[in-house]
Amino acid sequence: MTFSLTVLGSSSALPTSERFPTAQVLNVQERFFLIDCGEGAQMQLRRLRFRLGRLDHVFISHLHGDHVFGLFGLLSSLALTGRETPLHLYGPPGLEKVVIQHMDMFDIHLSFEVIFHPLACEKSSVIFEDKVLTVRHFPLHHRIPDCGYLFREKERKRRFIPGVLEKYDIPIALRTGIQMGNDLTLEDGRVIPNEALTTPGPPPRSYAFCSDTAYYRAMIPFIRGVDLLYHEATFSNEDVQRAQETLHSTARQAALIAREAEVKKLIIGHFSARYKDLQVLLDEAREIFPETWLAEDGARFDVPLEKGTL
Amino acid sequence: MTFSLTVLGSSSALPTSERFPTAQVLNVQERFFLIDCGEGAQMQLRRLRFRLGRLDHVFISHLHGDHVFGLFGLLSSLALTGRETPLHLYGPPGLEKVVIQHMDMFDIHLSFEVIFHPLACEKSSVIFEDKVLTVRHFPLHHRIPDCGYLFREKERKRRFIPGVLEKYDIPIALRTGIQMGNDLTLEDGRVIPNEALTTPGPPPRSYAFCSDTAYYRAMIPFIRGVDLLYHEATFSNEDVQRAQETLHSTARQAALIAREAEVKKLIIGHFSARYKDLQVLLDEAREIFPETWLAEDGARFDVPLEKGTL
Repeated sequence: MTFSLTVLGSSSALPTSERFPTAQVLNVQERFFLIDCGEGAQMQLRRLRFRLGRLDHVFISHLHGDHVFGLFGLLSSLALTGRETPLHLYGPPGLEKVVIQHMDMFDIHLSFEVIFHPLACEKSSVIFEDKVLTVRHFPLHHRIPDCGYLFREKERKRRFIPGVLEKYDIPIALRTGIQMGNDLTLEDGRVIPNEALTTPGPPPRSYAFCSDTAYYRAMIPFIRGVDLLYHEATFSNEDVQRAQETLHSTARQAALIAREAEVKKLIIGHFSARYKDLQVLLDEAREIFPETWLAEDGARFDVPLEKGTL
Repeated sequence: MTFSLTVLGSSSALPTSERFPTAQVLNVQERFFLIDCGEGAQMQLRRLRFRLGRLDHVFISHLHGDHVFGLFGLLSSLALTGRETPLHLYGPPGLEKVVIQHMDMFDIHLSFEVIFHPLACEKSSVIFEDKVLTVRHFPLHHRIPDCGYLFREKERKRRFIPGVLEKYDIPIALRTGIQMGNDLTLEDGRVIPNEALTTPGPPPRSYAFCSDTAYYRAMIPFIRGVDLLYHEATFSNEDVQRAQETLHSTARQAALIAREAEVKKLIIGHFSARYKDLQVLLDEAREIFPETWLAEDGARFDVPLEKGTL
């Protein structure tokens, strides 16, 4: 029941000797989601011994090169490994044209279908859903259209309190309904309230990705209470002017968002190459939001399943 | 007086956990030449602590993604570091369109001029020359137009035999001519032959880059006697059929070329991801040409200056 984020690249536009451009992979119960695809993402995946074939969904935040330049090589590699399963690509409307022009330029013939999901970045909607999670996009505030992404597990079934199945001799046909919250009506007309029969299942886990973006409080309703929030922190507060001009955030601003949205853990990344030592950014964020961590390349953040309360 | 090749990527189209796609940097007396630019080339350069600003010339062999996909990120990074010096880009005629379309798609505004040098890959000519070296392109044999590159130092001036300057009281005005090979005519009419005055300078050093290519003996006149030959060896001899179909070479074929061209050292690379252990390719090549080495990522090959003979 894994819920785990792995950082493939943590640099802003200019990569460093330690940091690749933005890319991440999220594992939700063995479903793998690639989020942004900066140059070298496929090499980082290989280093982590990740099988590329496990990717079915790629989410691109916006069409700046440091979030996309790894996509062409990745698609080409997927074709070389003989992939046949369709690949879903989510991102701003221009993404399809970019990919198709690129395949044409380099005469790349994919062995699989790419299904484009153009997103109106200024709005929010559920863009993916299966039986365990939903993915929603929501607006960020940057120089070009830019989507944040929210990955959230669905509510889990409630759990029977030990002994109740036998005590009330609950028929199999009614059990799923009760796990979804129904009360139980006995043959004699008595109603046993759900709370007497079940306890909540483990709460759904969630991850929100917010990069690139200026300090933008309008995102808060979308990310409220998530277990993990990735928020860009390109600059330190000393460079707040530069952050404003370029529509990026400081570590302090990322922490203010995390605090106001009452998230559980903040991960900061997309660091400007000017910071050789990231401690200054971490300290700045932790002063406001202590549960802050650095999205260094290769870092992994797990959200364990909480035990249901009995 | 460095002459040194550094391998940035040694994989064929599909990168592995150990090997990036093709890219190399050649240092000829502190002039730096980037040869091919597969995905991640700029990150490999950074890891080697190479300052990107030192690159003025980039040579692209052909327009397959694994030789070009790192170029867009590199250009973008050069702009972000505020480069103003023009950058020279050499490659097949389609390269200019590819780069310009890309800059348009991603709204990248370069802070410097890119000077394109479109090359007729089926021919050979000198494409760069300064006071220490020339660069020539020559045809390879692949599925699309594909250039090999030959980097060769110019002949050095001859060296005066110790004592002759004083013995014949050679005027300063004549010295450069004698170092270029002139004889000396004394005031009494006697002629002192050049061999009695000078010894040869160190021989010029040379490097030839041949990737991607099928086994192609027509390249031999261009690469004869070079100090270093890089020749692709995508496959082992067991997969010679696959090499023929895809117009690539086997390690054995690379060694046959090296032997017939009487080069001093052969470097093989562009390895298919199917070979986990490259020893099989190295052994196969060394059986024919013992001075063979693997172009592993980060490997560096130096050609020291030979002492002039006295």
